[in-house]
Amino acid sequence: MSEKSLSHTKWMKRAIFLASLGKNTTSPNPRVGAVILDKNGSLISEGFHFKAGMPHAEAMAFNNLKNDAKGGTMYVNLEPCCHQGKTPPCVDKVISSGLKKVYISMEDPDERVSGKGIKLLKEAGIQVNLGLCKKESLDLNKAFIHRNTTKKAFGVLKWAMSIDGRIALKNGKSKWITNDESRSLVHSFRAEFDAIIIGGNTLRRDNPFLTTRGSKNPEPLRVVFTKSLDLPSKSNLWDCSKAKTLVIYDSSTANESYLSRIPKCVEVEKVLSDNPELISKILAKRGCNKVLWECGPNLATAAIQSNCIQEIITFIAPKILGGENSMHPFGDFEFEEMHEVIKLSNSQVSLIGNDICVKSLCKN
Amino acid sequence: MSEKSLSHTKWMKRAIFLASLGKNTTSPNPRVGAVILDKNGSLISEGFHFKAGMPHAEAMAFNNLKNDAKGGTMYVNLEPCCHQGKTPPCVDKVISSGLKKVYISMEDPDERVSGKGIKLLKEAGIQVNLGLCKKESLDLNKAFIHRNTTKKAFGVLKWAMSIDGRIALKNGKSKWITNDESRSLVHSFRAEFDAIIIGGNTLRRDNPFLTTRGSKNPEPLRVVFTKSLDLPSKSNLWDCSKAKTLVIYDSSTANESYLSRIPKCVEVEKVLSDNPELISKILAKRGCNKVLWECGPNLATAAIQSNCIQEIITFIAPKILGGENSMHPFGDFEFEEMHEVIKLSNSQVSLIGNDICVKSLCKN
Ligand SMILES: NC(=O)c1ccc[n+]([C@@H]2O[C@H](COP(=O)([O-])OP(=O)(O)OC[C@H]3O[C@@H](n4cnc5c(N)ncnc54)[C@H](OP(=O)(O)O)[C@@H]3O)[C@@H](O)[C@H]2O)c1
Ligand SMILES: NC(=O)c1ccc[n+]([C@@H]2O[C@H](COP(=O)([O-])OP(=O)(O)OC[C@H]3O[C@@H](n4cnc5c(N)ncnc54)[C@H](OP(=O)(O)O)[C@@H]3O)[C@@H](O)[C@H]2O)c1
Ligand SMILES: [Zn+2]
Ligand SMILES: [Zn+2]
Repeated sequence: MSEKSLSHTKWMKRAIFLASLGKNTTSPNPRVGAVILDKNGSLISEGFHFKAGMPHAEAMAFNNLKNDAKGGTMYVNLEPCCHQGKTPPCVDKVISSGLKKVYISMEDPDERVSGKGIKLLKEAGIQVNLGLCKKESLDLNKAFIHRNTTKKAFGVLKWAMSIDGRIALKNGKSKWITNDESRSLVHSFRAEFDAIIIGGNTLRRDNPFLTTRGSKNPEPLRVVFTKSLDLPSKSNLWDCSKAKTLVIYDSSTANESYLSRIPKCVEVEKVLSDNPELISKILAKRGCNKVLWECGPNLATAAIQSNCIQEIITFIAPKILGGENSMHPFGDFEFEEMHEVIKLSNSQVSLIGNDICVKSLCKN
Repeated sequence: MSEKSLSHTKWMKRAIFLASLGKNTTSPNPRVGAVILDKNGSLISEGFHFKAGMPHAEAMAFNNLKNDAKGGTMYVNLEPCCHQGKTPPCVDKVISSGLKKVYISMEDPDERVSGKGIKLLKEAGIQVNLGLCKKESLDLNKAFIHRNTTKKAFGVLKWAMSIDGRIALKNGKSKWITNDESRSLVHSFRAEFDAIIIGGNTLRRDNPFLTTRGSKNPEPLRVVFTKSLDLPSKSNLWDCSKAKTLVIYDSSTANESYLSRIPKCVEVEKVLSDNPELISKILAKRGCNKVLWECGPNLATAAIQSNCIQEIITFIAPKILGGENSMHPFGDFEFEEMHEVIKLSNSQVSLIGNDICVKSLCKN
């Protein structure tokens, strides 16, 4: 690579780094960072998008200019927007700034943009270079891209098990399989998600809080999917002072008289079947890019089958539980041959104290 | 640490390294290495024990002397023997050599030695230093020590499973869960073992070879434990040209008329119950220091319960198998509370291609 292209890469990586500062906060928006050099190639501004309603990365960079941008260059990991959203279109600002060149990693998959921003820049006589560090940029916004292209939320399934693959003793006891460190890691890594999903049975059995314990504000939306609506009238999820809760029920099977058990602060939505895809679509529509499925075997199996899971995270504790009828992470997929099974890829392994954490991609 | 003691440590580590060259071959003997310095502190010989019947490490070192040992020093990771075995006692050689000092990591747990060798050296006026690098030496010979102190073989349990803890589909199919690399790793790591144990059911279902595919000569002893003796008359284990086979049966339940199905080249031994401890004791008596349990859930559970397992090795494939009644690594331990479960420690994780290999210690 030439020295020149190395330096372009360096600036785009800086933009991507800036974008990553919005990791847990930009939803439903993408993570975007921008760098502006003046006509001599000196850095004169930077910006990133922090939160919906706040300035886009490009706008923040223009707000922060230390010198005239005329004849300069911008590096931005996503195509600048050309539609009026909560803030005015960035393309207009780029054009009026007099910048000569814009490096863009990738097109914005949002239907309102998807190439139109680039077209406008080119029509205004700005040189546009598309594709620098595209791989990194795709990865950075993979949940946002997934939502925009599939209209479903990017799903991560998490479970904790013993090294013999059990998630509870046969009498159902499971407190605790993993160590303190793993459990508090789960609390803090929930902050990467816009919603946390469980099934009605996990609510009844575990009565969880499903919060980040304060590391995200507002807390991720807590979602309960139920076929029966047979939910308790007392539950930690009914306390909406710390986090919001949404109950989604299958109206084809639910007993709607149970609705009275749910307090007013909890939102309720009905769907026409028990297909988890419906949850994923509802949450996508609400702007959730990335959602965490913390459900038990039954809902987890259905979520995988309906293609709602793109990544899995397994916490494996170095313990042997055994048990003829102990719970396992999944129910039946009806596989008859080994080549049919679900193959995961790109596994990354880390040690959390004595526990082992495995992250893998799930494409089925 | 002083420079002097650093150099003592350096020489003892060299002795331990030499000892480790006998890793897969010394059983029933320990792994021993020896280093000899002359009276000026120059290295004049080295030796290690390779195989039962061949010279002990000390004897080999005396055979290789490049200079007079009188007034010199020896470093050896295990107490020199004082009993006439297949070769004469090493203590006599040390004394007659005129060595002034001997550094020994640890006493020999073998009842015929256990301190007597050290006593004889001291009585002959030799300065004995005991305990240098003891931790490393204990680890190097942990299987040998285990056998000598418990009269049972050191047991390692190995299984392969999917990331949801399944060892087969519910129809029993399991070829293959792990990748080629993991499976050939299993072949070569069998060379660390003196015997490989399975139960009758694994023989009937999988008809395995249980060899190192040539990487150890002779191959480890292949052991089948059966309660029923209902073994097939054709089986890969009945071909004794590549490796020996031993069938151990529980005479309280076996149908001895099935003995006629087993060819003459296969050794047969009977025991009075189905307690896996009996296997472990028989193999210890035969000089097996370290044995690999490659059994299915039923025998694995019994082997753990009877304290035959000191280490576990799990191969985890990044696949989801699911299945309501799929096989898991273990049966029922009847645990009622989470604090009762079997805790593993000192887990080491490695990646074998996409598979994850976890080794842990098992003390229950
Ligand atoms: N170790 C772990 O990581 C972990 C994580 C979560 C849960 N768990 C354990 O898992 C157990 C609960 O297991 P579970 O499988 O019953 O979990 P779940 O997460 O409650 O999912 C099942 C429930 O989801 C609802 N549901 C909606 N659509 C569904 C569909 N298509 N398929 C299946 N269920 C659907 C039903 O609720 P209704 O019954 O209300 O209709 C159903 O009972 C608890 O004991 C909990 O402790 C373990
Ligand atoms: N994934 C893996 O790592 C792995 C490894 C090994 C096996 N497997 C699978 O495991 C399945 C076999 O499972 P399994 O549990 O039946 O395995 P097994 O290894 O055959 O052990 C059970 C058999 O051992 C004999 N036995 C002797 N003493 C026993 C005792 N105290 N308790 C239990 N059994 C005793 C019995 O043989 P008799 O019936 O002859 O009396 C019994 O059927 C096969 O499908 C095989 O493919 C998987
Ligand atoms: Zn914008
Ligand atoms: Zn000796």
